[in-house]
Amino acid sequence: MKLAIDAMGGDHAPKEIVLGALKAVNAFHNIHITLVGDEQKIREYLIDHERIDILHTDEVILGTDEPVRAVRRKKKASMVVAARQVAEGYADACISAGNTGALMAAGLFVVGRIEGIERPALAPTLPTIGGEGFLMLDVGANVDAKPENILQYAVMGSIYSEKVRAISKPRVGLLNIGTEEKKGNELAKQSFELLQNADIHFIGNVEARDLLEGAADVVVTDGFTGNMVLKTIEGTALSVFKMLKSTLTATLKSKLAAAVLKPDLVQLKNKMDYSEYGGAGLFGLKAPVIKAHGSSDANGIFHAIRQAREMVEKNVTGTITEILENKRPQFQNEL
Amino acid sequence: MKLAIDAMGGDHAPKEIVLGALKAVNAFHNIHITLVGDEQKIREYLIDHERIDILHTDEVILGTDEPVRAVRRKKKASMVVAARQVAEGYADACISAGNTGALMAAGLFVVGRIEGIERPALAPTLPTIGGEGFLMLDVGANVDAKPENILQYAVMGSIYSEKVRAISKPRVGLLNIGTEEKKGNELAKQSFELLQNADIHFIGNVEARDLLEGAADVVVTDGFTGNMVLKTIEGTALSVFKMLKSTLTATLKSKLAAAVLKPDLVQLKNKMDYSEYGGAGLFGLKAPVIKAHGSSDANGIFHAIRQAREMVEKNVTGTITEILENKRPQFQNEL
Repeated sequence: MKLAIDAMGGDHAPKEIVLGALKAVNAFHNIHITLVGDEQKIREYLIDHERIDILHTDEVILGTDEPVRAVRRKKKASMVVAARQVAEGYADACISAGNTGALMAAGLFVVGRIEGIERPALAPTLPTIGGEGFLMLDVGANVDAKPENILQYAVMGSIYSEKVRAISKPRVGLLNIGTEEKKGNELAKQSFELLQNADIHFIGNVEARDLLEGAADVVVTDGFTGNMVLKTIEGTALSVFKMLKSTLTATLKSKLAAAVLKPDLVQLKNKMDYSEYGGAGLFGLKAPVIKAHGSSDANGIFHAIRQAREMVEKNVTGTITEILENKRPQFQNEL
Repeated sequence: MKLAIDAMGGDHAPKEIVLGALKAVNAFHNIHITLVGDEQKIREYLIDHERIDILHTDEVILGTDEPVRAVRRKKKASMVVAARQVAEGYADACISAGNTGALMAAGLFVVGRIEGIERPALAPTLPTIGGEGFLMLDVGANVDAKPENILQYAVMGSIYSEKVRAISKPRVGLLNIGTEEKKGNELAKQSFELLQNADIHFIGNVEARDLLEGAADVVVTDGFTGNMVLKTIEGTALSVFKMLKSTLTATLKSKLAAAVLKPDLVQLKNKMDYSEYGGAGLFGLKAPVIKAHGSSDANGIFHAIRQAREMVEKNVTGTITEILENKRPQFQNEL
């Protein structure tokens, strides 16, 4: 299996990308990695490996670039070239820790949608207290979703969770402002109807306050709401930890006690860190496209590679395509 | 000034409601409180006070009641009677810690909307790291909002923040998925246009992850998104504290260190507790209606009373009404 990786995207590129790739080829013997980017800079960190090669380009998409325009104009940018590797059949999947909007655009315009999928979804796996995590989609690929889009998110999320996360009959919940059936705005109410009749394990509405408690394995919502909830979780956890830190370093007494607790607190913070779960998948494209977190270190990249590998191995894209091609008539009727 | 309080609403009614009322009449000498509810149960906790009287009723709206139906049918419920005290001019404002949906319905049907306000908004003040807090509206009074509603929320929130929270030129932010001007779904984009031309201190889009950092004094959004974000903040903070607790009690060593830190940690948790900021106001009604948190203790009720008192004293409702009646032509043009 061949994976194309944008070596220049993310806060710690190319160093952590290269180190993550090295870790991955040593762990997984059936993968071959193409690192796309500035060869000289990549070589600074790369130990020669027979299953890693470099595809040189010196153009890069920046975090500040306007996504769609950047993808259209910077045709030699490392991210675009990595996506093209997939589109042209040289790679089975691609990964980038760069500009999220640009990767969505590259996925859409370069890799392309699965026929029948109107809107791809961005789907990260978020942490839960129990450690099992949950998949949320969409978190921002498509801000004005229709009920039919939400239904497709639910089907794609179920397939991914079954195949890659090995959850049998994943519980799919609709993010809503209450658990009762008639709750929510028009979109939520109409989506509820569709989900209820789909060939998935739909458990009804789930509330935002119960997400981290593991209320569902797959949580579906429109990209605007999903993005809000994702950023609120991140922001709140960060703010609480920031306040905790200032509390623990306020006095000498608290500093001493905090020193004793430090290993436990670091472990707690890591539990909220979702790089272990891999990156956010762009679901609904003709091949797996993974967005690794912008701040990914080698470990985060390693897990994004692991995730891409499993998506290819378990044929997630093929299964989604098959289901859309009328293998499950019940679902097809909904579309 | 007369305040009507639903003595039977909330998890700790009537005890904590009565104790909160007693605390308030002792602190504020210009208020008179009518406690509405079961006289016998109220008397268990009430110390006779010349500025507290009881209006007896034994009907109650439960947390599980369907809101609109409950308000229409249980005409003698403590919450409905309290709202009627306001509608009939016997009280200047009312407060309840009961069923949120029912209080919104009672506000709408019994107290009534200010003319020109199409949709009232539910507006809690949420905590920030710095302790100053921010007002968010709407958090669920109206799940399918239009840009014109969002504009009215912004104006009402500004007036409240100026008058009651003593913030001069409150910074109004539109909750969105990015800070750039053209971001968001259709509702967000159209709301941005209206807010930009309104007679308020609009600072543009604010992101959910920056709310607890104090990104704005007033944050406006539709009720669906606002409810999500509110519950996500609550849920995430609660989950992090739960994980913290289990970390700190895992071993004997950590328990000992945690004992030293306990006062600091309790203080930290209190910082995230927003009962000090009062309840959530229902803005856009003909008189102040305050929803105290369901789990309110006497202190939470005290602060809700303090808030209602200030809203009456500073004539928040009158100011909103005046502005809608064309005192500020620029705003009027937007409607």
